[in-house]
Amino acid sequence: MSRFLNPELAKIEAYIPGEQPRDMKYIKLNTNESPYPPSPSVLYAANEEEIKKLRLYSDPESKELKNALAALYALSPKNICVSNGSDEILNFAFLAFGKNKSGSGAVFPKITYGFYPVFANLYGIEAERIPLRDNFSINPDDYINKNKLTVIANPNAPTGISLTKEEIRKIVSSNPDGVVVIDEAYVDFGGETCYELIKEYDNLLVVRTFSKSRSMAGARLGFAFASEAIIEDLEKIRYSTNPYNVNRLTQLLGIKALEENDYYIKNCERIIKTRENTAKALKELGFTVLPSKTNFLFAKSEKISGEKLYEELKKRGVLIRHFSDPEISNFNRITIGSEEEMTIFVDKIKEILRLPKTLGGIQL
Amino acid sequence: MSRFLNPELAKIEAYIPGEQPRDMKYIKLNTNESPYPPSPSVLYAANEEEIKKLRLYSDPESKELKNALAALYALSPKNICVSNGSDEILNFAFLAFGKNKSGSGAVFPKITYGFYPVFANLYGIEAERIPLRDNFSINPDDYINKNKLTVIANPNAPTGISLTKEEIRKIVSSNPDGVVVIDEAYVDFGGETCYELIKEYDNLLVVRTFSKSRSMAGARLGFAFASEAIIEDLEKIRYSTNPYNVNRLTQLLGIKALEENDYYIKNCERIIKTRENTAKALKELGFTVLPSKTNFLFAKSEKISGEKLYEELKKRGVLIRHFSDPEISNFNRITIGSEEEMTIFVDKIKEILRLPKTLGGIQL
Repeated sequence: MSRFLNPELAKIEAYIPGEQPRDMKYIKLNTNESPYPPSPSVLYAANEEEIKKLRLYSDPESKELKNALAALYALSPKNICVSNGSDEILNFAFLAFGKNKSGSGAVFPKITYGFYPVFANLYGIEAERIPLRDNFSINPDDYINKNKLTVIANPNAPTGISLTKEEIRKIVSSNPDGVVVIDEAYVDFGGETCYELIKEYDNLLVVRTFSKSRSMAGARLGFAFASEAIIEDLEKIRYSTNPYNVNRLTQLLGIKALEENDYYIKNCERIIKTRENTAKALKELGFTVLPSKTNFLFAKSEKISGEKLYEELKKRGVLIRHFSDPEISNFNRITIGSEEEMTIFVDKIKEILRLPKTLGGIQL
Repeated sequence: MSRFLNPELAKIEAYIPGEQPRDMKYIKLNTNESPYPPSPSVLYAANEEEIKKLRLYSDPESKELKNALAALYALSPKNICVSNGSDEILNFAFLAFGKNKSGSGAVFPKITYGFYPVFANLYGIEAERIPLRDNFSINPDDYINKNKLTVIANPNAPTGISLTKEEIRKIVSSNPDGVVVIDEAYVDFGGETCYELIKEYDNLLVVRTFSKSRSMAGARLGFAFASEAIIEDLEKIRYSTNPYNVNRLTQLLGIKALEENDYYIKNCERIIKTRENTAKALKELGFTVLPSKTNFLFAKSEKISGEKLYEELKKRGVLIRHFSDPEISNFNRITIGSEEEMTIFVDKIKEILRLPKTLGGIQL
């Protein structure tokens, strides 16, 4: 730390992304990336002509990209904003709505995406962190009448458990004086989206990303749906921090990806199938596996600690994500990779637990 | 504005980027972009293999890119941070250093990059805005013993006028308890860089960009040099807002661009030559042209108001930048384009001023 840092920021604790070790080639099941590449027309869109145009600024309004999103989701472009990954929109939301006329405050589950407390901390927003139920699900009744900035990942991470649209409606409708952010990063893997509720509630902000279901984590593209007034506020913050936040190629590749939506729907279906088969295989090995609507599983075994399993798998070239929070330290978060990767993953677990390997792979 | 916005933010005024009209094809001399494309190896780097890898997150540490910058500028990677355009680093700097132990405050010239007051406003930082000299130059003596966050664009925008390294040293050394940001966005066009002073002063932050001299405005890539402690603070803010801030392709293209530095040096030399010839032509037409060390000129004519010239050029397909601030509203900022573009620009001015056109173009 320098001696110049704003003393209010001296105590912030930054977010810790999943590890990206380079000592060997791993099967990467630790950062919820897609095992499948972007769709065919994305692969060839960054041609020489487009690269030459990099000398020019990107469109600060991302007009064509917003139009493409508006067409696909049957909304007006005025209900959409786009960003350099969805973390950026979450950051804007905490800055814009973490303090409102009735005071300061945010509320989110105790166990959820680890970035929410970081944002709250950064902007000096008091955060109420509500425990999950014993089965790791969110109880919507806990989020009634808060009228603060409510932030719910749906499906939640790292549990993978989803709320229904009607449960979300209950939260949104009972907090008319606070913004409710529903972070739908993982919704395309079987969760129920609530985005159409933005037409009914002016306090709902639904955040999405191209990083998971659309195989573009490395391109950094997030988007969000909300009432025109909320989008205006976010745009104001964007134009006050970094108006050219989405680069030219990402805008272009995003548009191409939206044109081939069916490709991504098929990928999601394939990942869901692999997830269910992997969950079955883990349960057969005695694991507790939470019911996931995402591209990852959250699972624990009585036979081995979460940390030990993580370490033993890493030694064997398979990376999964372990969290040190004592409430969930027996669990690990396992991204759903390709069928082959998950077969290897299950076989490595059998090896670690000294169980016979599957003949011909698990049924995936 | 929504009814949920933080009341402290209700009065912020966002930055207004240069216009990007789409009604016709313009000669764009309004946003200081390079007339030349990125270097040859950048053009083909975003190949199918690299696009496939977009399914994976970018390196949040931008390690290879930092190493490449460190090698070129003979620094340690620990003295470097990279960002989604240099505006992002400026944003971080205002957030991190706009309030320090001795209180809140920033200081910058009254006429300078229009984003500085926006950042100050956003974070509630009181800004002291110091007038330029009558000749539009910065008087370094005005920035002595402030010990606030001092922000100087060098060369300054939109004037184009540069301070020497020794003048910058005077400012940096006389403000030991405040961070001094030197925004060198335009330094490659003939200004004197001060970046090596980071080895002597722990309060100096030098901000750079790939947008101007490296022809990559649309890729969004900024970087900065400073003491390890200042870089640590900026990294902490980055990891608390958007750790994957630089996407995969931008990191890759940035590395490729650094490998071909000579190409960009030649472009800069060419732009400098075109600038000097354009300045000469404008002076011959009676314009006052400030001495520029950038890729733009700041010029006015007694024969036509700044606004009128801007409008008349726009009608004729040439975009330049006009600022409504009364102190500079007689001027326009003219980006240096290609030789051909500047010949057309000068000819259009002659047309507007009803002077005979140049036979065979101006000498460029």
